[in-house]
Amino acid sequence: MLENIDLSRKVSKEEYKSVKGALELKLAELQRCIKKMEIPLIIVFEGWDASGKGTLINELILPLDPRNFRVYSTHSPNQEEIMYPFLCRFWRHTPERGRITIYDRSWYRMALDERVSGSVKTEDVQNVFNDIRCFERQLADDGNIIIKFFLHISYYEQKKRFEELSKNKTTSWRISENDLKRQRHYKKYLAVTEEMLAETDSEFAPWSIVEAHDRRFATLKIFNTVISALEHEINRKKRDVDNINKRVPASSFDLPVDLNISILDKVDLSLDCKPENYSSKLEKRQEQIRELAHELYMRKIPLVVVYQGWDAAGKGGNIKRLTQNLDPRGYEVIPVSAPNTIEKAHHYLRRFWIRMPKAGHISIFDRSWYGRVLDERVEGFCSEAEWKRAYREINEMEKHLTNFGAILLKFWLHIDKDEQLKRFEERQNDENKQWKITDEDWRNRKKWDMYKIAVEEMLFRTSTSHAPWTIVESNSKPYARLKVLETVISSIEERI
Amino acid sequence: MLENIDLSRKVSKEEYKSVKGALELKLAELQRCIKKMEIPLIIVFEGWDASGKGTLINELILPLDPRNFRVYSTHSPNQEEIMYPFLCRFWRHTPERGRITIYDRSWYRMALDERVSGSVKTEDVQNVFNDIRCFERQLADDGNIIIKFFLHISYYEQKKRFEELSKNKTTSWRISENDLKRQRHYKKYLAVTEEMLAETDSEFAPWSIVEAHDRRFATLKIFNTVISALEHEINRKKRDVDNINKRVPASSFDLPVDLNISILDKVDLSLDCKPENYSSKLEKRQEQIRELAHELYMRKIPLVVVYQGWDAAGKGGNIKRLTQNLDPRGYEVIPVSAPNTIEKAHHYLRRFWIRMPKAGHISIFDRSWYGRVLDERVEGFCSEAEWKRAYREINEMEKHLTNFGAILLKFWLHIDKDEQLKRFEERQNDENKQWKITDEDWRNRKKWDMYKIAVEEMLFRTSTSHAPWTIVESNSKPYARLKVLETVISSIEERI
Repeated sequence: MLENIDLSRKVSKEEYKSVKGALELKLAELQRCIKKMEIPLIIVFEGWDASGKGTLINELILPLDPRNFRVYSTHSPNQEEIMYPFLCRFWRHTPERGRITIYDRSWYRMALDERVSGSVKTEDVQNVFNDIRCFERQLADDGNIIIKFFLHISYYEQKKRFEELSKNKTTSWRISENDLKRQRHYKKYLAVTEEMLAETDSEFAPWSIVEAHDRRFATLKIFNTVISALEHEINRKKRDVDNINKRVPASSFDLPVDLNISILDKVDLSLDCKPENYSSKLEKRQEQIRELAHELYMRKIPLVVVYQGWDAAGKGGNIKRLTQNLDPRGYEVIPVSAPNTIEKAHHYLRRFWIRMPKAGHISIFDRSWYGRVLDERVEGFCSEAEWKRAYREINEMEKHLTNFGAILLKFWLHIDKDEQLKRFEERQNDENKQWKITDEDWRNRKKWDMYKIAVEEMLFRTSTSHAPWTIVESNSKPYARLKVLETVISSIEERI
Repeated sequence: MLENIDLSRKVSKEEYKSVKGALELKLAELQRCIKKMEIPLIIVFEGWDASGKGTLINELILPLDPRNFRVYSTHSPNQEEIMYPFLCRFWRHTPERGRITIYDRSWYRMALDERVSGSVKTEDVQNVFNDIRCFERQLADDGNIIIKFFLHISYYEQKKRFEELSKNKTTSWRISENDLKRQRHYKKYLAVTEEMLAETDSEFAPWSIVEAHDRRFATLKIFNTVISALEHEINRKKRDVDNINKRVPASSFDLPVDLNISILDKVDLSLDCKPENYSSKLEKRQEQIRELAHELYMRKIPLVVVYQGWDAAGKGGNIKRLTQNLDPRGYEVIPVSAPNTIEKAHHYLRRFWIRMPKAGHISIFDRSWYGRVLDERVEGFCSEAEWKRAYREINEMEKHLTNFGAILLKFWLHIDKDEQLKRFEERQNDENKQWKITDEDWRNRKKWDMYKIAVEEMLFRTSTSHAPWTIVESNSKPYARLKVLETVISSIEERI
């Protein structure tokens, strides 16, 4: 999912100046507040070489009282450190209550550098993830606020920065052989990074991706993230102490830019397929799917396909093309709407657990458990704590399924707002399609921006190596249908 | 630790009758209460074949409103069930809000029967534990109360019961070939069971061991455990809702018997070693330890030895004998007392993390992180939630250490109350030893019974296959010293 993130966003000098002062003042105030309330704060900076960790940490500490924080720089473990369990040195530098530790690189080295270099063996990687989760949970349970940043830059940006650094005598020493080696293996690091982010993201220590091409954008995002996290936790603590449901309103700054992660803006919705090729291609793909479904049956591999997407993105037609040629005894399409009374009386995941395909069969979910972090989040049908922990719960469920041997594919059918309007109006004006459009569709459309934030966070937090999301450019229905078919085909082929 | 549990405890018919009625009434009342409050309840019965699961479940459901619970009997998965991820069928039967599901056997089959039979591969066992932890945490987060019983009987008791069943025509059909096979492999099941209990014990779904030789004792313990768990959760929920720190007092029944797990009562404190053999044996063991310590150094294996025990149990003298012959550059004795101000400002585990031995070295902790679940629990220095989650946190830390390659040994130096009094008085009356005895020692002695409960729960919840507890019979100091030395020697030898 990292590759899909829009890294082009920028903030002008003037825009930056207009708000930076207020953010700094607020941060300084909150720091005094957590000092007084004895809340310890941990901030982790991870990210690509040359992504600007040093510069950005400097920006962050400027407004802070220097007596109240320390920056711990994590180099590869030295001869002495390697003699201890790897968490020891990080435990040592955890902050006292009311103080701040900023880790410039951290325990995540074990899941990145030490993993790629081979000093962590493949069979131990899961242990490392588990150790990290336990470590962070223990600290969070003890009252620590944990904020983790991953500074993201593209391969080309990194290359450019390296070249600039090496041109200049005063900076060229900063680039080592190892840095260049890592640069050459950007792709490999990307995959390892994505797995690490997915495995260690949690409601008590969530990852924030910082688009780090533009220093000013990155600075604003870091400030804003830290401020919201502190305000959130301070409010929670105050509620606990006073036993009153009071809530200090979160600060709102007049930010010159949208800081939310942006994945969908980069999607190329102009993609199309030539009408003259469509039918023959479709037929061919459907034939392939039919054969592969038989193969799955023989090998007892279950397949789960999840469809999510904007209203009128074409889920129905897409599913139709996927199943048209399949043996009806081997698959089931499961339409998911709001939970009924009985379903509401259970854990929200239960109704999906009991509809999973059996070995060798296919379940196609038309909407799914992702309702928890989409509709239920946006409409307020569940609490913030509930949808925040749902990312982890969903990842856990999907891991159980794929550990069992299932292939799990998730499609986000993406259209833009104009295309949606066009389709809504078509439906409205066509007698035979009017049933397809409801008042709710129009209501949801009004909340497009809130849904977009939820969708992008979902795509980022639940795209795992074992159950990846595929974004399907769906302004062209034929293109979208072929893309889904082809993704399903290649995923099955890869497995068998 | 299961082998150490005292299974001999009994309740007479009269005693049983005197309290059973009150427990039943209370349980019925609480059941109506959780129904009204919409709290779902899950009760798991696991245990040896012929430990009486059926009978005891019957006792439990008798006072319940039959419209509000169901019993789900878990047999080995059938041809259909085996086609799904193993959690599916248990998800299906989770209770609606306000209702009760009683699982007669459960998802733990995967960690017991299916593991021993080989249908769960060794490399997947950790995944199974992890799946179970995630499953239970998700349900607990959603408001479920989870109570897990393990009905424990000895090898001989099981054998006796099997023989009785097979004698009688009307019951002999109940014993299958598989049952008899499992009986023959009691030892193997015992080890697997202990690992399962340690890996899946948690503050949100704790295990309760039920001593099941005596049906009446077992019934009372089950009733009492369910009642306390429900009262605890109902109180917590009420506090959340009303936002007031009110607490309904827990019911206290006039129980005819102590229901707490009993491990220490069975310890044979008459064990001694012949005085004429002591010196020569001691010298020989110390020489062995010296050589093995060198071996550890060469192989870079760290060793952690934890001493806990009653005041005046002889920790100091015991540690002295362990270290007397060791190279002082290779070990460190770490005396642990109450945390200082800086230590208090951190997570309670931090001060231990930063004192762990480096590879090839030895750390000996004279008292340790177990203070959290002993002194801090009994003296009220931490909250109930804190010491309850500490068992898991400690197991996590110890697992990290042993994954790193450390050998971790924990000794509980046990004496009885009379022996302690004798030693206290000796100290008091000997000028040279008076410094050893303080007012605090006398104060702690008064709380002997509360400490005993804490010690036994600690021994049960933190004895893991990778970091086992050894109970050291310490009424005889020479015996205790030799036993520790010999345990250390055999543990090191086993590793190298």
